[in-house]
Amino acid sequence: MNGAESLIKTLVKNNVNVCFANPGTSEMHFVAALDAVPQMRGVLGLFEGVCSGAADAYYRMTGKPACTLMHCGPGMANGIANLHNAWRAQSGMVNIVGDHASFHLQHDAPLTTDIVSLAKPFSGWIRSSASASAISQDAADAITVARGMPGQIATLILPADTAWTEASGELIESKDPVSPQFSEARALEIAGLLENDGPTLLLLSGLAAINEGLELASRIAEKTGAQLMTNRPTARLQRGAGRPVLDALAYPVPDALKQLGSFKTIILVGTEEPVSFFGYPNSPSRLAPEGAKVVQLASADENVLAALEYLAEELDAQTSGERYKLALPDLPYGDLTLDKVFQSVAALMPDETIMVNEAITSFRGAALATARPHDVLQGTGGAIGHGLPESVGAAVACPDRKVLCLQADGSAMYTIQGLWSMARENLDVVTVLFNNRAYRILQGEMTKVGAMKKGQTADQLLNLDNPVLDFVSIAQGMGVEASRALSADAFNDQLAAALTKQGPHLIEIMV
Amino acid sequence: MNGAESLIKTLVKNNVNVCFANPGTSEMHFVAALDAVPQMRGVLGLFEGVCSGAADAYYRMTGKPACTLMHCGPGMANGIANLHNAWRAQSGMVNIVGDHASFHLQHDAPLTTDIVSLAKPFSGWIRSSASASAISQDAADAITVARGMPGQIATLILPADTAWTEASGELIESKDPVSPQFSEARALEIAGLLENDGPTLLLLSGLAAINEGLELASRIAEKTGAQLMTNRPTARLQRGAGRPVLDALAYPVPDALKQLGSFKTIILVGTEEPVSFFGYPNSPSRLAPEGAKVVQLASADENVLAALEYLAEELDAQTSGERYKLALPDLPYGDLTLDKVFQSVAALMPDETIMVNEAITSFRGAALATARPHDVLQGTGGAIGHGLPESVGAAVACPDRKVLCLQADGSAMYTIQGLWSMARENLDVVTVLFNNRAYRILQGEMTKVGAMKKGQTADQLLNLDNPVLDFVSIAQGMGVEASRALSADAFNDQLAAALTKQGPHLIEIMV
Repeated sequence: MNGAESLIKTLVKNNVNVCFANPGTSEMHFVAALDAVPQMRGVLGLFEGVCSGAADAYYRMTGKPACTLMHCGPGMANGIANLHNAWRAQSGMVNIVGDHASFHLQHDAPLTTDIVSLAKPFSGWIRSSASASAISQDAADAITVARGMPGQIATLILPADTAWTEASGELIESKDPVSPQFSEARALEIAGLLENDGPTLLLLSGLAAINEGLELASRIAEKTGAQLMTNRPTARLQRGAGRPVLDALAYPVPDALKQLGSFKTIILVGTEEPVSFFGYPNSPSRLAPEGAKVVQLASADENVLAALEYLAEELDAQTSGERYKLALPDLPYGDLTLDKVFQSVAALMPDETIMVNEAITSFRGAALATARPHDVLQGTGGAIGHGLPESVGAAVACPDRKVLCLQADGSAMYTIQGLWSMARENLDVVTVLFNNRAYRILQGEMTKVGAMKKGQTADQLLNLDNPVLDFVSIAQGMGVEASRALSADAFNDQLAAALTKQGPHLIEIMV
Repeated sequence: MNGAESLIKTLVKNNVNVCFANPGTSEMHFVAALDAVPQMRGVLGLFEGVCSGAADAYYRMTGKPACTLMHCGPGMANGIANLHNAWRAQSGMVNIVGDHASFHLQHDAPLTTDIVSLAKPFSGWIRSSASASAISQDAADAITVARGMPGQIATLILPADTAWTEASGELIESKDPVSPQFSEARALEIAGLLENDGPTLLLLSGLAAINEGLELASRIAEKTGAQLMTNRPTARLQRGAGRPVLDALAYPVPDALKQLGSFKTIILVGTEEPVSFFGYPNSPSRLAPEGAKVVQLASADENVLAALEYLAEELDAQTSGERYKLALPDLPYGDLTLDKVFQSVAALMPDETIMVNEAITSFRGAALATARPHDVLQGTGGAIGHGLPESVGAAVACPDRKVLCLQADGSAMYTIQGLWSMARENLDVVTVLFNNRAYRILQGEMTKVGAMKKGQTADQLLNLDNPVLDFVSIAQGMGVEASRALSADAFNDQLAAALTKQGPHLIEIMV
């Protein structure tokens, strides 16, 4: 067994069985080893950002890490934007990067670069394997880190000769993740605040915002009258009928200040103090109202679930709080507006849809809270181009569910190659492409930062209307069936048909 | 005048007047400032790798730096692959990266990351501006570095508040680049070797391989019987009728060993000892024959041109060496083969074509040496996805010349967004897209590294045939006219028409 086979077998033995790959020469033995280990599913991306975004979404939906396979420093660099998002989402991932053979590195061949320096900003763990026989232990250690609470990105650098050299053949098991601690004293203090210092907000992120974390938070809210809201970055939201009522902190600073303005106490669960996404002139970075008490029940690095459980028990909070009730809108008709798009989406999307949202300025989510229950994956680190890749990963993670990708035009173009992987894997992804022919968010930001444009040069850097991108043509060129909807009726029909059939489809709307 | 205007005016004052940009919120004031300084041309890329690759080619063709404008760490990360290539090409560039406002950084908002760690591997100089009034000096210093010999990438990080704050208004001039030294003693020693220790090879790169460097090398070769060859990475080749006879070191190790095997002396000019691109099992990294004398006239960091001039004078080398003579092939007809594609290209491409070559396995260059004189830009750092971006930059740099982009399918997909910028700027780029429906180079590399695949999983990661990419559809979707040529006759007609008209065109061939 060579090092490459030892790697793939160690991954599979430890339940890492999807590899989002864009390999090169230095990874050829790993590719060959995939043949010998059919339990590992290889999913090809034509650009590394597709692979890293897919692995991120795979973790968000399953709670278990996938691996990537990328080619040397420059290949990995192509994946960094979505690795950054995954780091902010606290997604576990084994990020495998091939490198030159160890004997070749000293010669500074053209592809040689400082992979560690490139990987440091987003990696919780970095190691370069010293030999073929070290790979299994290295991979097991990487998996332990990736499976930790919270998840982390473990970057494993594999010199090409470690892959082709004979390994000992021993396959190492990864360690069970160690549960982090939380402070009971802080929880007790917070129990007191919840009973006395209202109005109170429970500001949630990560594990506190989904599944049992959200359920516990909902019981605490019901018992104490506190409200629930998610902070940024939030890897995953659970919304729709039957799910606890849960606000999300708004992106625009004035809206966020208004949302938070009335609270006397803000309790952070799995998150830090709320701050604005960007700093603006004459606008605060910190969003909590002056004089409010801001206390942390547990940081994202602490045991968020145990802390919530302890707090709920302390408060004797046994009854779940308010939940959204199903209320589906009628199908719209006539001219297509953004509101009607979301009306149609709310009416038609099936139970347990996974919505991937990178529609940004086009998003009109009001109707969705009372739609059928669904998950939402959204941007976490502010790096754009996550929508199509995350849709690939979510569909691979949950083959029995429909993925609905709400994708803006500008951000789509950063990782447009994701469409091809949807076609290759015949993934159940319906993409609604909002073509507004502009970096609309930047047109708004320009005003917010107080920049006054005087002529056409600046417009040329914010408009995408010359030429207009034709996403039907682009999608078809990548093997994805596509159509354009110019009325609400057409959109209803196309969306209903796309959600019914197997495989990917893209619907372009001009907004 | 705010910091943003002071930046743009400083750049223009110092003759940096093209900005390849993909801006975000933190760069909005710089975008607004472009309106106030019409001498700066802003060229929008829909992906940062288009911007960095374009700036690289702009330098290669003009010898002067352009600037980029990118959004925070994750945005810059999208440009790293082509920044790596530019670093290896020793292209000068002012790489401008916006960051959070300085007062906002402490809050670790989602987009915050370690930009310096990401920029170190390819940057010769990194600075974050401390204030609006510091920007002009910082920009001038960055330009000095970028204009140095050799060119370097100067990464200038600009916190958003330095852009919107009032600056002093003083515009600083960059310093003239300092000419590096070379060793006369080494040159004298080499003069002796050239006269006595043949057969001798002059292995060239960078400035030694073009213009007066190449002319001097040609005279030295003529005088001493030495041969001329380019080493990797070579930023630019000058080929075709009238240009000095000049080999290029082959990529496959056996071919390279054969090319170098007969030389007793190898003289390095602007380059290092030749090494293989990758390390392979049972294959040497060092390519010079055992026992050959390998000496360096000047490294890329030394004064390559002065060293060549000194050597030529010492040898009294006054007569230019052998040059290629014009010999155009007939137009091919019948079935389209790779040889026929290059026959047609050689017959039809006009004087002073800029050929950007990322066709890799499809390239058949034999007929080109005696075609009309042309420049060739090729991969330098091994990061793929440089072809379309470099074509954008070359066309912006040289609006009076035709750019012919020879682009493989797999590598095209990394930076396919470059097509849109060609359409937006109506650039004179004809792209020949070689669609072989595979990562063909990897299919070869798999054998070279001795990896044996046993089943279909590995094939799935190397084939691009399911679905087949339709580049005509993709190009049209990005606003570029496109056609498919299925015979040699059709290819002749389409290429001739595309080379005659104004603006971009893509010709897809199935090979």
